[in-house]
Amino acid sequence: MRWWGWGVDGDAGQLPESAMTLLRGELGVDGAVRGPVDLDDVVLGAPTIGDPALDRLRAFGEIHEDPASRVVHAAGKGYVDLVRLRSGRPEGAPDAVLAVRDAEAVAGVLAVCAEERIAVVPFGGGTSVVGGLTPVRDGFAGVLSLDLGGLDRIARIDERSLTATIEAGIQGPEVEAALGARGYTLGHFPQSFEYVSIGGCVATRSAGQASTGMGRIDKLVLGLRCATPTGELGLPAKPGTAAGPDVRELLVGSEGTLGVITEATLRIRRKPATARYEAWMLPSFAAGAEAFRALEQDGCAPDVARLSDADETRHSLALSGALEGPRGDMLRRYFGLRRVEGGCLAIAGWLGDDDAIAARRRQVGMAFRKEGGAGLGASAGRSWERGRYHGPYLRDHLLDRGVMAETLETATTWDNVLALYVAVKEALGATCPIVWCHISHLYPAGCSLYFTFLARQERGREIEQWADAKRAASEAIVATGGTITHHHGVGRDHVPYLEAEDTPLGIAALRAVKRELDPVGIMNPGKLLP
Amino acid sequence: MRWWGWGVDGDAGQLPESAMTLLRGELGVDGAVRGPVDLDDVVLGAPTIGDPALDRLRAFGEIHEDPASRVVHAAGKGYVDLVRLRSGRPEGAPDAVLAVRDAEAVAGVLAVCAEERIAVVPFGGGTSVVGGLTPVRDGFAGVLSLDLGGLDRIARIDERSLTATIEAGIQGPEVEAALGARGYTLGHFPQSFEYVSIGGCVATRSAGQASTGMGRIDKLVLGLRCATPTGELGLPAKPGTAAGPDVRELLVGSEGTLGVITEATLRIRRKPATARYEAWMLPSFAAGAEAFRALEQDGCAPDVARLSDADETRHSLALSGALEGPRGDMLRRYFGLRRVEGGCLAIAGWLGDDDAIAARRRQVGMAFRKEGGAGLGASAGRSWERGRYHGPYLRDHLLDRGVMAETLETATTWDNVLALYVAVKEALGATCPIVWCHISHLYPAGCSLYFTFLARQERGREIEQWADAKRAASEAIVATGGTITHHHGVGRDHVPYLEAEDTPLGIAALRAVKRELDPVGIMNPGKLLP
Repeated sequence: MRWWGWGVDGDAGQLPESAMTLLRGELGVDGAVRGPVDLDDVVLGAPTIGDPALDRLRAFGEIHEDPASRVVHAAGKGYVDLVRLRSGRPEGAPDAVLAVRDAEAVAGVLAVCAEERIAVVPFGGGTSVVGGLTPVRDGFAGVLSLDLGGLDRIARIDERSLTATIEAGIQGPEVEAALGARGYTLGHFPQSFEYVSIGGCVATRSAGQASTGMGRIDKLVLGLRCATPTGELGLPAKPGTAAGPDVRELLVGSEGTLGVITEATLRIRRKPATARYEAWMLPSFAAGAEAFRALEQDGCAPDVARLSDADETRHSLALSGALEGPRGDMLRRYFGLRRVEGGCLAIAGWLGDDDAIAARRRQVGMAFRKEGGAGLGASAGRSWERGRYHGPYLRDHLLDRGVMAETLETATTWDNVLALYVAVKEALGATCPIVWCHISHLYPAGCSLYFTFLARQERGREIEQWADAKRAASEAIVATGGTITHHHGVGRDHVPYLEAEDTPLGIAALRAVKRELDPVGIMNPGKLLP
Repeated sequence: MRWWGWGVDGDAGQLPESAMTLLRGELGVDGAVRGPVDLDDVVLGAPTIGDPALDRLRAFGEIHEDPASRVVHAAGKGYVDLVRLRSGRPEGAPDAVLAVRDAEAVAGVLAVCAEERIAVVPFGGGTSVVGGLTPVRDGFAGVLSLDLGGLDRIARIDERSLTATIEAGIQGPEVEAALGARGYTLGHFPQSFEYVSIGGCVATRSAGQASTGMGRIDKLVLGLRCATPTGELGLPAKPGTAAGPDVRELLVGSEGTLGVITEATLRIRRKPATARYEAWMLPSFAAGAEAFRALEQDGCAPDVARLSDADETRHSLALSGALEGPRGDMLRRYFGLRRVEGGCLAIAGWLGDDDAIAARRRQVGMAFRKEGGAGLGASAGRSWERGRYHGPYLRDHLLDRGVMAETLETATTWDNVLALYVAVKEALGATCPIVWCHISHLYPAGCSLYFTFLARQERGREIEQWADAKRAASEAIVATGGTITHHHGVGRDHVPYLEAEDTPLGIAALRAVKRELDPVGIMNPGKLLP
């Protein structure tokens, strides 16, 4: 991946002209492009891990100490990460990167690092957007980035039980390719799908774009192997149990702070014959939310269920260039005809066989029409599908042009959704000219809300500007009873808000687990636990 | 409830003659009835909690020190509990019973008990069958039974989010009555439904007869309040989150060893218009399991899904009296005609509206017929429904007649189901003439196996006889990769086997949590954690 942004050169495409028009008009940016500094100009501290310790670690894998490796492993892909990297001032970097190839090597590394007091940052796909990879070195002899990319095997597919045992470092597309070749799918498609690692998904409790139908990753985990500084937890696949508190649940979402997940046994499904996506326009966010609530509570929700508010609908069509060219003219005319300009775009997607999808589509159509919705058809749905992983590329274009672009997400019960929506929107709106929101995951009891906020960067105080907006949104979330994160995880950004959710005693319980499994505290310090 | 058995006088009915024929033939029992000793003859130790401590506790509720209260709270309803109680020799009894009425009182009691070093056994419905209520007094100043029956309110029904916030002490029928009056159901129907408390269900991760469709109780929990000796955990309802390891999952299944669950917010559903049950006869256990696996993995499983093996099918029809009288003659003829005598009885049940049930019934019918099954119709299904909570009453009749009757359950992935079935059946068969099994809960990745075993009691060594069978079964479960309990919980009976499942490090992590929340160790000692 590009060290200063998302993807590889050539994949990012161009920013459409309609997007620049929008940015000029709404944010007052001039369009001048300011790219990242040269890699050679990135400032790195002198490594502090001594040679004897490095020699011990070399027994377990390949050590990389070159600047390029250190920079690539210095941060995730959050807004703060990228702002710092692009300016050549990452918040520290690991002293070295150690690439391992199996769970036994991970166990060996952790034992050595505990003895040598070296902090360990597990590195899967490197896609954290909440500071989960920041190399915190307070009090440690150094920081090691433990690259898990070599744990890239599918250890077993159990076709009777529909489970796959998958090593932690394998990335989204490789998982789907390997399972797909046998006729199966994991069905987990976060926006970071192209680079995300399976271990990272499990460690951060990620949700994917089809999670309404397929379930969040935490609902797919049946078994786990996790290496800790104290030893290994090898938890076999269990479909259901009453044997006490679920130890697997201590590790799912532990974000590398207790140990390194090296392997997971996950539920898989037969590969669907068809994937179909449709777009609808709803007259308001409340109407769309009501339709989705009814569908989900009646057991009829589509597998992919997304609803943009009016701002996101208008702006995201512009940013993606969907209103340009002949297709755009058609879409404009269609909106005009249907008198729903200013409406809210909904995407419904189904994975399955044609007959089942046809029946489910009818139910969705009825629910949307009941709320005043108008169908935009499958071509608009396919347009969403084509762009489903484009967000991070778009952000790089915006950063090039001096635009702060960040996202955050929460979830709450249905009775509280609109209150939370309004509270966060207002909190972000106080400093950001553009604030969008969409619903992306439905539960019988509630849904997620995903916010995107844009503003012209304040040169020289980019981080403070971000922190002000982030703090306002986080405080609004806590005050309104939302969860501080629905699928990005806690990382470092959300640490101050976890206690409000888990209570001080809940945090104390998690800290007790941490002391037991990681007594020296080397595992991903500064993350998750306050 | 009767102190020596299940239910209240008059509810237990009679043991049918066909059952006695079976018991005489297979177990060689003579049919003589030997009931429990008189309540006055139950041996109770002298209370050891001092008056100053009792006076402190009196501030929080009503204290009962009379023998009847102590005996009723001395044990659960497991085989060992009942054998001991009936003989007048319970394994100890609480010094006193404290009946509280709200969460604040619970918190106050725990604080006092921690100071006074009094062990606390939370008591909801009193239905544990795994020794979860045994008053262990090692090293403590005494044992207090904390009766939660007064926490019997439904605090809130959220009709938009379809959740209910329910106090811990309210029992199954009262929950359904209160929700039903508003048009809702929790849909949680363990065999102990008539007496079980909601807090007990959550604390033991219970499953109900409709859990294939409705989900185990741990899948229904959205929020919790739990009082611990260190303070309260008040975890609000969250539909989904990525905010670290789920603290709720530490409390679900904690069996009173970390604190007392005082309230839970649970998913509810609209009350179904219809409940329909059908019986089928399958040619073999493997064929029936295959049909259920296919249905569950295709998303077409019935809400209630049960499959008895051939032994359970034959014997349970005899024990229930289903083959007696004109209805029995009809059933016999029907079996004969269908040439499936010696087959395996399956029950499929659906909760919902008529149209949806009709479509789902067709899918089940196709799957069963594909495996050689023959439908026995709805009247046989209703017969199962009428008897769905009769098991514990039947056991009392068997105990009266000198029969050891005990159950245990496990679960595993589909690839391992038949191996586990054979292993446990053989292990129990070594000492028990009658061993039955049924599947009662389906998951995409596997299912549960529920074993019933009967033998003539060995007078004078009833407990040892039971322990021999239990140990053989438990060791077979562990060796074959099943979970040590699928819905009864760990209690005291399964403590020795938890480590095999959670690994020593997993147990260490749970112990660390226990030290944090309950540093004096007063909460339900001797249970759950080895």
